[in-house]
Parts: sequence; structure tokens; C-alpha cells
Amino acid sequence: MRIEELQTPALLVDGTAFAHNLETMSSALPGPRLRPHVKAHKCTALAARQAAMGHPGFTCATIREMEGMAAAGLGQDLLLANEVLDTSRLGALARSGARVTVAVDSEATIEAAARGGVPEVVVDLNVGLPRCGCAPDDAGRLAELARGRGLEVRGVMGYEGHVVGLEDRAQRTELVGQCMELLVKAHAAVGGELVSAGGTGTYDINTWASEIQAGSYALMDTAYGKLDLPFRQALEVLATVVSVSPGWAVADCGLKSLGMDHGNPTIDGASVWFCSDEHLTFSADPLPAVGDRVRVIPGHVDPTVAYHERLHVVDGHDVVEVWPVDLRGW
Amino acid sequence: MRIEELQTPALLVDGTAFAHNLETMSSALPGPRLRPHVKAHKCTALAARQAAMGHPGFTCATIREMEGMAAAGLGQDLLLANEVLDTSRLGALARSGARVTVAVDSEATIEAAARGGVPEVVVDLNVGLPRCGCAPDDAGRLAELARGRGLEVRGVMGYEGHVVGLEDRAQRTELVGQCMELLVKAHAAVGGELVSAGGTGTYDINTWASEIQAGSYALMDTAYGKLDLPFRQALEVLATVVSVSPGWAVADCGLKSLGMDHGNPTIDGASVWFCSDEHLTFSADPLPAVGDRVRVIPGHVDPTVAYHERLHVVDGHDVVEVWPVDLRGW
Repeated sequence: MRIEELQTPALLVDGTAFAHNLETMSSALPGPRLRPHVKAHKCTALAARQAAMGHPGFTCATIREMEGMAAAGLGQDLLLANEVLDTSRLGALARSGARVTVAVDSEATIEAAARGGVPEVVVDLNVGLPRCGCAPDDAGRLAELARGRGLEVRGVMGYEGHVVGLEDRAQRTELVGQCMELLVKAHAAVGGELVSAGGTGTYDINTWASEIQAGSYALMDTAYGKLDLPFRQALEVLATVVSVSPGWAVADCGLKSLGMDHGNPTIDGASVWFCSDEHLTFSADPLPAVGDRVRVIPGHVDPTVAYHERLHVVDGHDVVEVWPVDLRGW
Repeated sequence: MRIEELQTPALLVDGTAFAHNLETMSSALPGPRLRPHVKAHKCTALAARQAAMGHPGFTCATIREMEGMAAAGLGQDLLLANEVLDTSRLGALARSGARVTVAVDSEATIEAAARGGVPEVVVDLNVGLPRCGCAPDDAGRLAELARGRGLEVRGVMGYEGHVVGLEDRAQRTELVGQCMELLVKAHAAVGGELVSAGGTGTYDINTWASEIQAGSYALMDTAYGKLDLPFRQALEVLATVVSVSPGWAVADCGLKSLGMDHGNPTIDGASVWFCSDEHLTFSADPLPAVGDRVRVIPGHVDPTVAYHERLHVVDGHDVVEVWPVDLRGW
């Protein structure tokens, strides 16, 4: 199939840029040094390519992602880097043979893991992002509590999410150090083999973590594109110009095909005015014609992909593979 | 099933508020005076309730919505209020017995409708929102062109999308009048029975249109909630508190369960700090406990529903119906 035959809006993955991204990351973080995060792409076919690069374990954000990865034969070592109260589905997954580890940061989440039959946990620390994670000083106590409930404690986790997107590399580096100091100290109290942290923005400067949970590097977006990273923009939304007026044009992609929390998407050589549910209004000089195709680069990869049913891998104008986005929902 | 048994995040529809909204709208705009827009809910089960209130026609934004409505037996009079170049699927739909009308605003879209076998069109006008729609003065020429290509021209359409959300009712009323003056004038040049326009924010002040394309009224969101409208908030995202720290709590819904283009969602009695992919960080006094449920009210209904697989209709704590969100995608 040719790109020209695709119904729009459609997600395109530039096969060359994608391969470059996987190779670049695997060279920097070989094998278990990278635990790719599937939340960025929600696609087992893409995850299979990451596994083929030698990364045995994966990071997930939802129970559905854990189940889907196991069903796709990628359940060798799945970490749910998130707190869960209803662990019944995770327990069933563990009993079916997948290796299931879940993050805990409280007595309630430890109790839930134990009751649900999730055999292994990591203690999740707050290293500065006001989200999940226990206070660093409390990690040792929680690890002891978990072991007392019969859980295997594999180590610690602490995501420096407030740091990964900082554009100034020196500042990013300094702050990662501060975060990881907390994590390393807690690890001494907790024990276990894992110090899990990091993301695409800190993959090469977070040298404290034993494994990096990066996900966006595979497809990329304009937010990470502002950082000086060696990863290439591999994801685009293909859209069709459906209307042209004096001064602007309208393409058929909008709020339901683009994650908007990082603001408007971009179009090379054009100025994006605003998005509606199924429309993107933009100006360019010269304006395109009705029927022309445009390539729209999302501001934030994760919530963009989550709107779509499939990724179209392209080589020039050829669609060479179609990958279902099969890990959506919860 | 009880709400307590639902996996989270989950979309809840308050059955009482929903029924109130449908009754209120149908009293104001009975029968064909309302052409409900399905893009807001993407759910044929919900659309069937709207049809049961006596509204024979529907407005759609995508080809998939048109196909899904026809497949659900709701294809009596479907208007695609959007421009389309690849009309092959619409032509097939018309041949299968659905009544299919599509918006046109250019020679190219007229030509596409004729070639694809879409029998009926409306001429779409730009009434002030810089999006689709021809210049008002060009509507008559396009209608003539369409008739020359064998198309039935049913009338005009012009969405005052830049006006529907204005909080000042007097200003809203004045601007609707200016927009509709353009539409009514063009209608005189175009002919046909339809003058299709309007939305939830202008349903009772747009007295020029022969039919109103409102959709959000059925479920509502915080953006429309700021207007002085008689519709009640019927949609919530149910989430579970998975982590509590000194000063904040984290619920398990985020960027992938909430349309974010209107900004953060709200929680009654709490302050929402920010959303991540699967997390919402908020403060409240007192803070909830881990395991507590919270109700999150979306800023924008349309892109919120589009992330979810189903709507759970609730009566108190009972889930009385589950409606698939079956019109997603394109």
C-alpha cells in the first residue's frame, strides 16, 4: 500500500528514523540497562522490535499493558511502574506464567499486592515529582513490611519526571544527580538488584539507575525534540487538507487524533492556529490545495498514540507494516 | 454491578442528569428542530436515546460515525458536517440505504461528492470561525455547481463555533445574530430546506437556523458548565486514589482518559495540580485515603469520551447500563 491510499488521519512511523532510534538507545543502554516503557506507544508489535534489540524487560503503566504484553509473549519481566489497589488481574497474570512486578509506596499497596498474589515488588520513591512514591526515608520500612508479607522486594524505583524535560542539559544533569542521590540512599536501605528510574530526557545522564525506563525515544515528539538528544522524530499524523480559505487551510486531524497537553502540534513550514475535534487550522505561504496531504508532528507522543488504532510503518511512500495499537484502555 | 466494582478509570453517566438533559433539549427543540451531533459522545446506544426523543436526523463529524450510525439502524437522515475528499465509503453507505448528506465548500469537495456517489449536499459557509466553509458570497455559485453535477442541494450549514462558548449571554446572542445574518442571506441564494447551525451554547438563541447541531448538552463538561445553561453535568471520570503524600494525593486517571485542550479537569472540593499519562495529582482538605474513589469532571467532553471504550450509566451506586463507545476512530 502507498501512503496516498491511507484514510486520514493516520499515524505514520518513519521506519528509518525508528530503526535509528532503537539502535542509538540500545548502543547506549544495552540489554537490561534499558527497560523500555510501553506507555509511549501501546503497541506489542513495536515492543517486539525493542525486545529483539536485546532488552528483556519492559515497563508498563496500566494493567491492560501488562496483560497485553504477556499475551504477546513479551512477559519475561514486566514492571508495572504504578500503584494498584485492585491486583486481582495482576495476580492472575503472575499465575499464568508472566513475571509480574508492581510498584508499592504505602502499606495499602503492599497489602493489595500480597492479597492479589503479585509475587514481586519494587518500592517506589518520590524523588521530587509530586506524584506517587513514598518519602525516601520511609523506603526501608516499607521494604521490611513487604518482605514480612511474603513479597520479594526487587529494589527501588523513582522517576525524575520533573527533570526529564528540562531543556538545559547542565541543569538537567545537576537535578538528576540530586534525585538519584535520594534513590541510591534508599536502595541501600531496601536492597534488591533494581534501581529503576529515568526517561528519554535523562537516558545518558542518569548513571545511578541500574535500568532506565525510557519510552518516548522510539517515536519522539516536539517536546523531547527541543532537547539535544540523538533521537529522530519518527511519528507523524498524516492529514488531508479538506478546506482552503484566503489566509488559512484546514486539515482533517484534531483534538481526537493528538494529545494536546503540551500545546498545539507543529507542521514544518506552516503555522498552526488551533485544533478542533476533527480539524486543524493553519497558515502557510503558499497555502496548500484542497486534497494535499500534510504531516503533523505531535507535541506529546503518549496521549497521541492512545487515540489511534494502528501505526503505519513507512519507507518513503510505501506502507511496509501496519502495527495495531493493541494496549489501549485499562 | 455496583460502582465500587468498576475498574478505574471509568466513564460514568448520571442517568438522572442525562434524562433531564435530553428532556430539556427536546422540549426546547422538538423533533427535527434538533439534529443531535454524535461527535460529543460517539455512542450509538446514547444516540438511540436521542432518536427515541423524536429527533430523526443526526450530525456526524467523521465517516466512521456515519457508518456506525447507519449500522445501528440510525441512518434515516445523516449529515456529515465536514468536508471529505475520499467519498468512496460515503457513496457505499448511501447505496446501502442510509440517507447521506455531506457538507461541501469548494469545487473539489463538490466533485468528490459527485464522483463518490453521495446524493445530497449542504453548502457549508464560513460565518466567522476560521475553519471550513466557503465565503458567504460564494454559496450561490457553489450550489449551482453542485446541482449541475447532479447533486441534490438541501440547503446551507454554518457553525458559529467561535461564539457558542462565550460566557456572556448578551454578547453571545448579538454575535449569533451577526453570524446567522450571513447564513440566512446565503440560504436565499442557495435554496433548499435546511439552515443547519448552532451548538449547545446557542441552542435557544439561534432562532435563524432551521435545525441545531448540538451534541455536548447530553453529557456536558466544565467549559459549557460556565455558561448559564439548563443542562446538568452528567459525565464524570471515576478514579481511584492510588497514592497519598503529605500535601497531595494521586488518582489513576490522566492524559489518556481526559481531553486536555480546555485545561485541567476539576474535582469538587479539591484543587487539581496537574495530569500525567495515567495520574492526576490534586490537593484537598482533608486528603482522601489510598483506595478512596474520586469523581473527575472533564474540561471538554468530546476528546474525553474518545479515549474510552464504554460509558457506564449509573443510578446512585448501581451501574444500570453499559454503552460501548462504538464510533471511535475514522
